[in-house]
Amino acid sequence: MNTGTQSMWERFKQRYIEYPTLGLSIDTSRMNYDEAFVTSMKPRLDRALEAMAELERGAIANPDENRMVGHYWLRAPELAPTVEIRREIENTVAAVKEFARAVHDGQVKGAAGTFKNVLLIGIGGSALGPQFVANALGRPKTDRMKMFFFDNTDADGMDRVLDELNGELGRTLCIVISKSGGTKETRNGMVEAQAAYRAIGLDFDAHSVAVTGTGSNLDKTASKWLKRFPMWDWVGGRTSETSAVGLLSAALQGVNIDELLAGAKTCDALTREKKLTNPAILLAVSTFYSGNGTGSKAMVILPYKDRLDLFSKYLQQLVMESLGKEKDLNGKVVHQGLTVFGNKGSTDQHAYVQQLRDGLNNFFALFIEVLRDREGSSLEVEPKTTTGDYLFGYYLGTRQALFENDRESVTLTIRDVSPFSIGVLIALFERFVGLYAHLIGINAYHQPGVEAGKKAADAVIALQGQILARLAKAAGTAEQIASDLRADPEIVFKICEHLAANPERKLNRMAGAKPFMAVYKAG
Amino acid sequence: MNTGTQSMWERFKQRYIEYPTLGLSIDTSRMNYDEAFVTSMKPRLDRALEAMAELERGAIANPDENRMVGHYWLRAPELAPTVEIRREIENTVAAVKEFARAVHDGQVKGAAGTFKNVLLIGIGGSALGPQFVANALGRPKTDRMKMFFFDNTDADGMDRVLDELNGELGRTLCIVISKSGGTKETRNGMVEAQAAYRAIGLDFDAHSVAVTGTGSNLDKTASKWLKRFPMWDWVGGRTSETSAVGLLSAALQGVNIDELLAGAKTCDALTREKKLTNPAILLAVSTFYSGNGTGSKAMVILPYKDRLDLFSKYLQQLVMESLGKEKDLNGKVVHQGLTVFGNKGSTDQHAYVQQLRDGLNNFFALFIEVLRDREGSSLEVEPKTTTGDYLFGYYLGTRQALFENDRESVTLTIRDVSPFSIGVLIALFERFVGLYAHLIGINAYHQPGVEAGKKAADAVIALQGQILARLAKAAGTAEQIASDLRADPEIVFKICEHLAANPERKLNRMAGAKPFMAVYKAG
Repeated sequence: MNTGTQSMWERFKQRYIEYPTLGLSIDTSRMNYDEAFVTSMKPRLDRALEAMAELERGAIANPDENRMVGHYWLRAPELAPTVEIRREIENTVAAVKEFARAVHDGQVKGAAGTFKNVLLIGIGGSALGPQFVANALGRPKTDRMKMFFFDNTDADGMDRVLDELNGELGRTLCIVISKSGGTKETRNGMVEAQAAYRAIGLDFDAHSVAVTGTGSNLDKTASKWLKRFPMWDWVGGRTSETSAVGLLSAALQGVNIDELLAGAKTCDALTREKKLTNPAILLAVSTFYSGNGTGSKAMVILPYKDRLDLFSKYLQQLVMESLGKEKDLNGKVVHQGLTVFGNKGSTDQHAYVQQLRDGLNNFFALFIEVLRDREGSSLEVEPKTTTGDYLFGYYLGTRQALFENDRESVTLTIRDVSPFSIGVLIALFERFVGLYAHLIGINAYHQPGVEAGKKAADAVIALQGQILARLAKAAGTAEQIASDLRADPEIVFKICEHLAANPERKLNRMAGAKPFMAVYKAG
Repeated sequence: MNTGTQSMWERFKQRYIEYPTLGLSIDTSRMNYDEAFVTSMKPRLDRALEAMAELERGAIANPDENRMVGHYWLRAPELAPTVEIRREIENTVAAVKEFARAVHDGQVKGAAGTFKNVLLIGIGGSALGPQFVANALGRPKTDRMKMFFFDNTDADGMDRVLDELNGELGRTLCIVISKSGGTKETRNGMVEAQAAYRAIGLDFDAHSVAVTGTGSNLDKTASKWLKRFPMWDWVGGRTSETSAVGLLSAALQGVNIDELLAGAKTCDALTREKKLTNPAILLAVSTFYSGNGTGSKAMVILPYKDRLDLFSKYLQQLVMESLGKEKDLNGKVVHQGLTVFGNKGSTDQHAYVQQLRDGLNNFFALFIEVLRDREGSSLEVEPKTTTGDYLFGYYLGTRQALFENDRESVTLTIRDVSPFSIGVLIALFERFVGLYAHLIGINAYHQPGVEAGKKAADAVIALQGQILARLAKAAGTAEQIASDLRADPEIVFKICEHLAANPERKLNRMAGAKPFMAVYKAG
């Protein structure tokens, strides 16, 4: 411990801040900036907080999409800009709790009895939050229901989940989540699940609920289902955990969603403050400092608690989809972003901490320390030493080892992993992202780059249809088919290779001297 | 599809290479280098291949630790430098298969009957490979045993796994894995598991096997266990998947380990070749080109298959621990490395692909395409369109969307996720890492930076003992205790806060006006 100088201790005392109402503390003593740097940023931070206050009052904060950004109202409906929105939020939370109670009590049940499993069908913002919370707060012994997910359009992945649910679909409740109601991965998951229920003579409608925007395709499809819960255009997918998207599955699992909402609300109140002790500001300042506002250093998430091992995936979406933008608010090309990755300590110490300490200095670490080791008491693995002491020791040791090599870090400390503290963390990072986006002058609330991939995928699907029609007439090589269809031979080749690898598509591939000379023939 | 020009197709035809014996193809057409660049690297690549050939002949390739590097022999024992090593490898594979057969047949069984679960206790190289393989190849309906892991020293995490195994310990086989036999996280996991068995009157020894170096502490502890399997100093943790570390749990789960070994062996043979079509060379060249040999661009792993979603974690260890080094082989400070992260497509398209396409151009993407969609046949979610077509379409669409914005990518295509193809992927990346390390002139086979964190952690644990002894005499603040012990007050403060948050430690915290004025009192 060679930082044990008086000055490091004085620095730590200045830069370690407790927030008793949140059960949180932040330690920025291992970031190399000084107080003058923070003070120099104060005017920009104040403007960012003012912009966020405007957003919270209902301003159009997502100019491209002409939408309000209202995830903060979800845990403080009294702040919503209209009485209608307030009522919708309050009614939805009440409806979620009432539905969960009815399911737990067996008033709403499946063909084979009380529901014991939840199969959540969603992707991205409609799955990452629920997965993170289910993992962080799940307790196998006491959970009211067990959670399963379709979070992709991978046929084999769905088969595997259905295999785990083998014989239990009659006691499995499906939640289909899509804000737009048009997400293809989710639609495909729903169709596959419907087929699985149908195959054993069960009525899918009687085992399903939807979370979607009113009037969407999914909303119409779900009109005969057990229940529908609303999503609103003023809640973005990546900030939807405290809407029905996240609350419904959590309530069904048995999580106290009032506590989760209270944690988020309390954190919102504290992180609105124009104070340089505001933890969201300190995260934004630390991030800005580390990469000079350009994202040149990644944020490596190192939670020392198994329950938090999905937090980095959750934050990857929240942070990278919000901040990874081509243009700033003035339309200038900036290619902004902030790379986020991580797993969990001390496992990472046996994985990539070698590089963090010795290799590229292209990151700052965000440690998450959890003070409480476990619910019960611990045995001693050595005299007066527990497994939890080791976990703690590895956290502190890694922080120290990084610091010695001039690798910066921030530590967030929470008392335990509870619905309240998870609510705090969710709100803290939502605020951090909003503030940091203002500091770098970008719109955190749209995702224009995602459309290009979807459109290209739609074109592939459409071309596949043409290829199948073409092959129904005559066999051909990729080049021949492409020529006939005036299509890109590379895409034709890739599509034919994929189809030929799946026997039920009945596309024979007669190999040629080179891969591209293969002849495809419908058979 | 605006790349459908003749020249792109010609480029693709040049840069798309099939390896029929591997069931693999690689496509580097989306990397911007030209043939001249590859040719210019040929002399260095040849030297790298020669160095690896030497290593495979048994040279001391890990000079710091004076060890051979022999993971290639694990799947080709006939290439081992001595008859003794060859026999050890062959005997171990035979012993693994025989033990798995005896467990499956019930000849070796638990107190409550045939073993149905495996609890693997290990961390880093002793867990990441087994977890990746268990997830990639597991099939709930046909697996012979169900896999569970203690992969950390998190007490709460272990409690959760034990809760899932509630009532089943008598049919649960523990595998404790530590090469050195001294890894504290693994020792702690073993002690916690022992206590859990003991608490219900079961004999842990009769439910456990060890994988460890001969003569290690664990080897001695395990002398009365069901069985011990060897680990050798010439196998590094992060390249141990084809040793007993990975093979034992895979065989118990029901994976055909002969196929996995065959895949690795076939890939080794092909990637030894001094040809510019060698896929390991193409990966190394692509990586070198993208970051100019400095690691300035990350490798983003994007497998389009749920089964491969742990591959990025596995590769994080293999790549970052191997390449993240302070010094090159000449002792020059270089701070090398290659950042790896990823999850799975198309889920990532709803998470961070926004940043990949529009934001920081600080990466290249490594797509993994799996041609076979599922084991059975697929229903149509739209006319002539399956869920798998969508997954494929999203892969191709994302590749296209990235390319349009000058984001480079490589695609690896495999026919299916099978023991053979997983063996291929493991060997391919092991060879890639070895070659790339030679290109940048670093030792890929040590991890000197990991020791610092362990030592700092040991110091924390030792200081905790002193603090507890000190507090047994009198209460005090962190500063007072630190002054008495001549210790760093910051570390003392952190230790006391951790202890005070865990009731069974009986350390009362009497809050002061500021966090640092709290008085700690043994109670």
